[in-house]
Amino acid sequence: MTESHPNTAHSTDILIIGAGPVGLFAAFQVGVLGMQCVLIDALDRPGGQCTELYPEKPIYDIPALPVCTAQELVDRLLEQCRPFGFPIHTGQRAMRVEQQADGRYRVTTEQGMVFDAAVLLIAAGAGAFVPQRVALPEAAALEGDSLHYAVRDMARFAGKRIVIAGGGDSALDWVLALRKIAAHTTLLHRRDNFRAADASVAEMRGAVAAGEMDFVVGMLDALQTQDGRLTGIVVKHKDGTHSLPCDDLIALYGLVTDPGPLANWGLDMQAGRIVVDTTAYETNRPGIFAVGDIALYPNRQKLILSGFHEAALALRKAYRVVYPDKTLVHVHTSNNATLRERIQHS
Amino acid sequence: MTESHPNTAHSTDILIIGAGPVGLFAAFQVGVLGMQCVLIDALDRPGGQCTELYPEKPIYDIPALPVCTAQELVDRLLEQCRPFGFPIHTGQRAMRVEQQADGRYRVTTEQGMVFDAAVLLIAAGAGAFVPQRVALPEAAALEGDSLHYAVRDMARFAGKRIVIAGGGDSALDWVLALRKIAAHTTLLHRRDNFRAADASVAEMRGAVAAGEMDFVVGMLDALQTQDGRLTGIVVKHKDGTHSLPCDDLIALYGLVTDPGPLANWGLDMQAGRIVVDTTAYETNRPGIFAVGDIALYPNRQKLILSGFHEAALALRKAYRVVYPDKTLVHVHTSNNATLRERIQHS
Repeated sequence: MTESHPNTAHSTDILIIGAGPVGLFAAFQVGVLGMQCVLIDALDRPGGQCTELYPEKPIYDIPALPVCTAQELVDRLLEQCRPFGFPIHTGQRAMRVEQQADGRYRVTTEQGMVFDAAVLLIAAGAGAFVPQRVALPEAAALEGDSLHYAVRDMARFAGKRIVIAGGGDSALDWVLALRKIAAHTTLLHRRDNFRAADASVAEMRGAVAAGEMDFVVGMLDALQTQDGRLTGIVVKHKDGTHSLPCDDLIALYGLVTDPGPLANWGLDMQAGRIVVDTTAYETNRPGIFAVGDIALYPNRQKLILSGFHEAALALRKAYRVVYPDKTLVHVHTSNNATLRERIQHS
Repeated sequence: MTESHPNTAHSTDILIIGAGPVGLFAAFQVGVLGMQCVLIDALDRPGGQCTELYPEKPIYDIPALPVCTAQELVDRLLEQCRPFGFPIHTGQRAMRVEQQADGRYRVTTEQGMVFDAAVLLIAAGAGAFVPQRVALPEAAALEGDSLHYAVRDMARFAGKRIVIAGGGDSALDWVLALRKIAAHTTLLHRRDNFRAADASVAEMRGAVAAGEMDFVVGMLDALQTQDGRLTGIVVKHKDGTHSLPCDDLIALYGLVTDPGPLANWGLDMQAGRIVVDTTAYETNRPGIFAVGDIALYPNRQKLILSGFHEAALALRKAYRVVYPDKTLVHVHTSNNATLRERIQHS
């Protein structure tokens, strides 16, 4: 698609791939060093795992923040890099990386945006988060039609017979919301035990008791189709299998990480992580750096604070790529009046 | 002194040398990892350069703290490590390091304390802070008698003819305080221009105008002595030299960093800094780690956040020295109920 309709490339010094805590602090440092950057992230908002997986969870090991929630950490980092006004393009998954004749990198996203940067800083955490998909042969063809991994538009389920599969908060929340407009709603979960708020579970059980919906314990065993559309599912349970007619299946099994397209960028990888040196956290491809949990080197720890340090060192070397003819003088934020002015008043 | 009157050694897992920001956060991490530590620092209070040199200065590049003063940073780190209750011995300058037959290290301070630890973590910043001394041949013999680098006890200057040398806040503050009890007070500074609060300078000039004290522009050129005591100083100024009789000289030229005794610990050093690897920030002596600004490796940046990372990695390896038979499982502070309990409620 991007081949036949190439977009105008967004040009910048440094493309930061991943807008989690490490990517956000990297952006702040890009600003401190006087360079420009653009951030992209596959998720719908910045914050990475912190925002997506455990926003309310307290974190205790960020230096000088004795306790803060994951979301608060992200909010503070967003505030810290805001003075520089770097754009953050969310919902953009980096797909393809090509080095140009001039040495700069051209990055195309799955969604069709194109970026052109002297340096790539990969801060992709454990990779992109994608919904855990239904592992059945018919699934791929139904996706986006009668098989869904998210609810983008409630109205499309009005009057339909729907099955929602999953046992977490989003499965419960959507069952409770959609039962009011769907013709028939079934919750399918592999056991009678949920990883969801007690109140939601109680409300669901009340709705089942009131005959407003069904709850089935079992595993999704097959998808039944006719003319390319879903007509029902086969559920397997301890006593055998049974068929359940439905128009739409919404599978909410949670998010999984997927290094995905990264694996095709010509980077040295081990077990889904990118091998870097510890002098500048650079990959085997000059000008491409990897920091945070996606980076791999001896004794690496999965600590957010390590990503902050890695980004700091990577960006000093990146500066020499962006400005081969300039000398970078060590910047103490306190001592630099111009910078202080910019941070304080913008 | 400690040879002839050996103190009982304080025994611990890890001795942290330096209680600046990096040493304090290292102590927190020691606690998170379930080990014990003791901190020592040559200064009179924790905080290192932050507290000693620029407590009121705003810092902008601590991740997730868009702005805080250096003192606030230290206060936050003290709060963060407080739950573990590790002792901090201030005013203790590590002098001698000896490895014992069992591989543990014995550290003796200039002040006579003795520590026994499996691991040393050196977080000494630029080294210990010491007063800049008078560079004249007679100075050493007079030190502590009639030549002083700090005012510990004002009363001892009552009725004396004193000269205070220096042009910063402490010189001005002590001149203004001591002129009230000294027989005669002279401020000596190399130029008529101060790095001190305007109000103090104005008050000093008022006192000179009122005949309460003298201010002399010039350089300290020689110390005059008789029977081992100071009798006066020779001041050099643009028109020549002149003699100024006095009983005591208080030289307040500020603090300088001094790697000092570190240089004799058998560590690989370059330009006053300790060479470490970047896998665990360990020195050439196994079990001795160096983190923060005293550490040297390729592309090291003088950033507080780098010290946090270095300590995190150093302490994972230190764990294997302290507990050779245990396996360290990665600790997420959020997921560890025991730890969370300890941090929250102690």
